[in-house]
Amino acid sequence: MITISIDLGERAYPVYLGAELLAKTGALTRELGVNGHAAIITDSTVGPLYAKRVVDSLKSAGYPVSTHTVLAGEKAKSFRSVETLCESLARAQLDRHSFIVALGGGVVGDLAGFVASIYYRGIPFLQIPTTIMAQVDSSIGGKTAINLSHGKNLVGRFHQPFAIIADIETLNTLGTLEHNEGFAEVIKYGVIWDSDLLETVMRSPLDLSEIVKRCIEIKAAIVKQDEYETRGTRELLNFGHTIGHAVEATAGYGQMLHGEAVSIGMMAAAWISKTKFGFPVDDLAKLQDCLNHFQLPLKIPHPFSSASILETVFTDKKFVAGKIRFVVASGLGKATVTEEVTKEDLAMAIEAVKEPHP
Amino acid sequence: MITISIDLGERAYPVYLGAELLAKTGALTRELGVNGHAAIITDSTVGPLYAKRVVDSLKSAGYPVSTHTVLAGEKAKSFRSVETLCESLARAQLDRHSFIVALGGGVVGDLAGFVASIYYRGIPFLQIPTTIMAQVDSSIGGKTAINLSHGKNLVGRFHQPFAIIADIETLNTLGTLEHNEGFAEVIKYGVIWDSDLLETVMRSPLDLSEIVKRCIEIKAAIVKQDEYETRGTRELLNFGHTIGHAVEATAGYGQMLHGEAVSIGMMAAAWISKTKFGFPVDDLAKLQDCLNHFQLPLKIPHPFSSASILETVFTDKKFVAGKIRFVVASGLGKATVTEEVTKEDLAMAIEAVKEPHP
Repeated sequence: MITISIDLGERAYPVYLGAELLAKTGALTRELGVNGHAAIITDSTVGPLYAKRVVDSLKSAGYPVSTHTVLAGEKAKSFRSVETLCESLARAQLDRHSFIVALGGGVVGDLAGFVASIYYRGIPFLQIPTTIMAQVDSSIGGKTAINLSHGKNLVGRFHQPFAIIADIETLNTLGTLEHNEGFAEVIKYGVIWDSDLLETVMRSPLDLSEIVKRCIEIKAAIVKQDEYETRGTRELLNFGHTIGHAVEATAGYGQMLHGEAVSIGMMAAAWISKTKFGFPVDDLAKLQDCLNHFQLPLKIPHPFSSASILETVFTDKKFVAGKIRFVVASGLGKATVTEEVTKEDLAMAIEAVKEPHP
Repeated sequence: MITISIDLGERAYPVYLGAELLAKTGALTRELGVNGHAAIITDSTVGPLYAKRVVDSLKSAGYPVSTHTVLAGEKAKSFRSVETLCESLARAQLDRHSFIVALGGGVVGDLAGFVASIYYRGIPFLQIPTTIMAQVDSSIGGKTAINLSHGKNLVGRFHQPFAIIADIETLNTLGTLEHNEGFAEVIKYGVIWDSDLLETVMRSPLDLSEIVKRCIEIKAAIVKQDEYETRGTRELLNFGHTIGHAVEATAGYGQMLHGEAVSIGMMAAAWISKTKFGFPVDDLAKLQDCLNHFQLPLKIPHPFSSASILETVFTDKKFVAGKIRFVVASGLGKATVTEEVTKEDLAMAIEAVKEPHP
């Protein structure tokens, strides 16, 4: 097990990364001095696989435990789930001296973290991410969120967990789609921060442990610089996400994996970067190779309406006083936020990455 | 107009108190350097009376304005309202550089403040309390909340407004019940902090402006000492609220005014204080006189089940590791938090303030 520190001053916390860590949940939590009733929030996919190990570990460490399960999928990031969970926590008599354990992928982390941020005006929580996507990205940095019909992650809080336990073995049970999906975010780190990662992911055999570690370190560095996304650095993480979110919303939440939408969004952002910001053609080819390698989609499916994607971009949250802040790259590992991307650029990029009518 | 500062370091903000302030909303907000789209959240009672004045003032100051109205009453403090409002804000294209104006009583302030705390992970908000209850208590100090079926205010956030505008003239349109209700909280300040207030409220004519000012100063002092209710001081504000909340919940939210329930709760807390903590009989009589003077109820209506009130107390939020923290007074103006109140004390107090079967 290695420990990576998320260095946020008085809100600093450790990420424990290694194998067979689920069974150490109780001991690690005790070591951190956390007390009270533990409420595990998980979903119908991850719960049956891993909840028992976490429950047993917490119970062995003397914690009272209750488990609260939502249906797997993006639709769980709704006010309805939040209400159902809060009522369920109250029924289980959780009070302000209890804590929540988010056991699952990005959806569970976002949802359970948000519940933790508002139940009794905020109680502590522990992240146990069980997907690549969640281990390398969404579990780190304290963003919690649910979706509105108008857009993804429009409601949420910054609420840092007290620790993250990333058990690399949980990644073994991922299906191919989910495994590959996670690499959209890994590849994103390569584009915005560390181009070496784009070599590492192409190597065989894949050193997943090393890749997860490197991504956590990058995210930790970014979040440390800009905890509340007010200084620009954290916005870099949105590379591919502006158009990606819009594609995902147009598909209907849960119809397309987040990583798939981000893959398409990165192709669009790379197209804009190439057209206006000097992103080299070779780098675009390299990005495309990486995404291809993980069987991630490069094009918007042809039945999608370009107009509705564009409209969704404009109700999405990357706007400041009507101007869009957009992440572009001038090369691999070299990203920046710009306000120079126009509505026309977006429209052209969407057309450029749209599947032709068959 | 006078200005009282809520001194919370980097979250400090002013309370503007005076007459005809609604028409100054825009100018005061500009003075504070706040920009962006203004979304007024109000209810079906207050909106028709005062929204136009606030809208006009904000528009004159150059703000784009939209208005979002909920049905008046405690039931608005629900996840359903929060979701409806967030969707409505998104439709009106509010982004993270917008702000919310809470125009109304305690329910609107709690609800709109909570929406502001989670929309785009938190946007600024302005409180314009229009009831005595809200001006003297709920608008100050950053507590926002909605209810669960299991209890009142179980979900929320600490989210400080950027200012409070208390226009004393809005109190003129209060009905007798609402006017009197507000005095439950005023009288509470008399019991926990400043016994002189109990003289002031009995004087004729009533100097409402002076009373509101004094209460805001008391609340400001308490919140300054204990912003997040972690040091005990802020807990004093719960005097009468533990049993009060349970009575209110047992009645069904919206069936009994909050101040009415608090009045009964204070009688129960005073009974316990007298029985176990030396609260003088004369002080109890004085408290009773004050509550009577404002026609506030002293007894739990006889159809209510004592058992269900007691059970509700036990799912309420004043518990720490199974022990109840309860506010008692050893005399008027002298309150303290204790863990010495037992379940039996609570049961006896509830019986003591229960209306006899007719």
